[in-house]
Amino acid sequence: MNDSRELRDGLRRRIDDKTKPLGSLGRLEDLALQLGLIQRTLSPRVDDACVYVFAGDHGIAREGVSAYPQAVTGQMVRNFLQGGAAVSVFARLGGLRLRVVDAGVIEPCPPHELLESRRIGAGTASFLREPAMSAAQCEAALRAGAELMIQARAEGTQVVGLGDMGIGNTSAASVLASLALGAPLERCVGRGAGLDDAGLARKLDVLRRSLARHGAPTGARERLRVFGGFEIAMLAGALAEAARQRLVILVDGFIVSAALAIARELEPDVLECCVFSHRSAEPGHDLLLEHFSAKPLLDLSLRLGEGSGAALAYPLVRAAASFLNEMATFESAAVSRKES
Amino acid sequence: MNDSRELRDGLRRRIDDKTKPLGSLGRLEDLALQLGLIQRTLSPRVDDACVYVFAGDHGIAREGVSAYPQAVTGQMVRNFLQGGAAVSVFARLGGLRLRVVDAGVIEPCPPHELLESRRIGAGTASFLREPAMSAAQCEAALRAGAELMIQARAEGTQVVGLGDMGIGNTSAASVLASLALGAPLERCVGRGAGLDDAGLARKLDVLRRSLARHGAPTGARERLRVFGGFEIAMLAGALAEAARQRLVILVDGFIVSAALAIARELEPDVLECCVFSHRSAEPGHDLLLEHFSAKPLLDLSLRLGEGSGAALAYPLVRAAASFLNEMATFESAAVSRKES
Repeated sequence: MNDSRELRDGLRRRIDDKTKPLGSLGRLEDLALQLGLIQRTLSPRVDDACVYVFAGDHGIAREGVSAYPQAVTGQMVRNFLQGGAAVSVFARLGGLRLRVVDAGVIEPCPPHELLESRRIGAGTASFLREPAMSAAQCEAALRAGAELMIQARAEGTQVVGLGDMGIGNTSAASVLASLALGAPLERCVGRGAGLDDAGLARKLDVLRRSLARHGAPTGARERLRVFGGFEIAMLAGALAEAARQRLVILVDGFIVSAALAIARELEPDVLECCVFSHRSAEPGHDLLLEHFSAKPLLDLSLRLGEGSGAALAYPLVRAAASFLNEMATFESAAVSRKES
Repeated sequence: MNDSRELRDGLRRRIDDKTKPLGSLGRLEDLALQLGLIQRTLSPRVDDACVYVFAGDHGIAREGVSAYPQAVTGQMVRNFLQGGAAVSVFARLGGLRLRVVDAGVIEPCPPHELLESRRIGAGTASFLREPAMSAAQCEAALRAGAELMIQARAEGTQVVGLGDMGIGNTSAASVLASLALGAPLERCVGRGAGLDDAGLARKLDVLRRSLARHGAPTGARERLRVFGGFEIAMLAGALAEAARQRLVILVDGFIVSAALAIARELEPDVLECCVFSHRSAEPGHDLLLEHFSAKPLLDLSLRLGEGSGAALAYPLVRAAASFLNEMATFESAAVSRKES
């Protein structure tokens, strides 16, 4: 019997000794088990959590694929920092720290204590016309994401919520999901921040033409370089490294899941450390979740991104660790067990 | 246009002015709207929350319908008070106060600051043999539940989580659900705290014979008297009164939902104030939720009771009120709106 098997059995016993009918905490029990396995302990700690919002601009946004103007990316970065965005509110409420990473927004933001400036460039190129980024840019973004997770670990962070901001990034994520899954593009494309029917048709057409121009690039890195965004590449690097650092990873929605499809090819064990926050209303997310055999904690028809779903799911992660660490056992509370 | 319509429109506008794509917070937006309508304000406050666990013993438990011995009801009451049960842990974590109500546990518990003693008797009678309670007991239990909610309101409580504890109470709830819904008994009966196949068959047989003995009593009060429990009657009274007091009601699982089916006949508007915490793994709960046209916030295969699901869902209620009260608007944050 190896250590991991012993740890798993030990966690299972600890869960089953708690004063509750066997299995009655349902998926929170699976989550408690996963937390113990990630941290390799019978007493996982998840009190120190930080949500990282990776922001970047996309050249493809200039091709009319989004309901919102491109300037919104930078405007929302300021909103995150000022505390007025959904993720700001939910992080504050849930007790997660917030860090906003400028991966390459067009208009740089003035320095701020919550801002990490890791700019790869002033937005990607439009992949309808040329690859979104150079190989050097893609590598730099992957590395920056990894460095942030090494730093998170060094600072004592136990849980990282990973989120995204970038007008146009559901376009990039749809193409990446379609290529990663071998799924038809139209099943991976949705209304993003709120396209109408005509807008959705235009988006699909632009993405079809983009795919026709580049074909299907070989390998995760090359797909990321051609169709990705700076924030998506940074997310992929962060996901892979967070798993190496054995951090608990709260995966937000569609964009982060598309980055995860890349990260998984770079770091095959990454899923062990991933907790899926919620099922997004964006259709490609369902396909990615199925691909990962993942069942998210929440299903509230959210489609906001920003890490807002990760922040909302965090209290359930704390609940899983807390019942494992704080509930009485049948013995300690003198409660009778099930009759045989 | 009446006030309620104006309030609804005002809330909708306030939600839509927040810096997020229209509708992108999904069901949290519906919840924020509901909170405003319950409290009749554009700025609902949900920071003061208390979870009430109503505990009572059931005569039917002596007929071999439960996997756990009857003594567990009283043992768990002590565990709640000592802070070692799931609901104790989740309430502490979520920032809800906890109040344990002895509605009629066999063995009384010594006084405790968290304990409300509202004992109707030392457990109900076995409804396989006679009605579970007298009309006077049933009325006293309904009244006690109502009084607790009047008191909650007077103390400034804004949200009440309602939960249950009582070995045997899924049997009572199954019969009450079957009668309220006109649904076949077998669709309303489940494994409770963990019956095996033989136990489940025995439970179903006991409940069939009980129904045959009493027939289908006329009216909600009479059904409650014959098949209910002291804690279920108290829950029904609490639910109806909490709605009159315009408290936000976090409905826990199967037992509380069965009590709600009764409460709704006493107070037709009760559903307006109900937020459904989670979908229980107990099969009768699905039918009740459908009956109420309710979509619960969580779906984690919980089947513990105690108000544990209500405590787990509370952070989402806070999140809904918080985004409404704290998020910036497009104007205040200078974020561009959707392009027309």
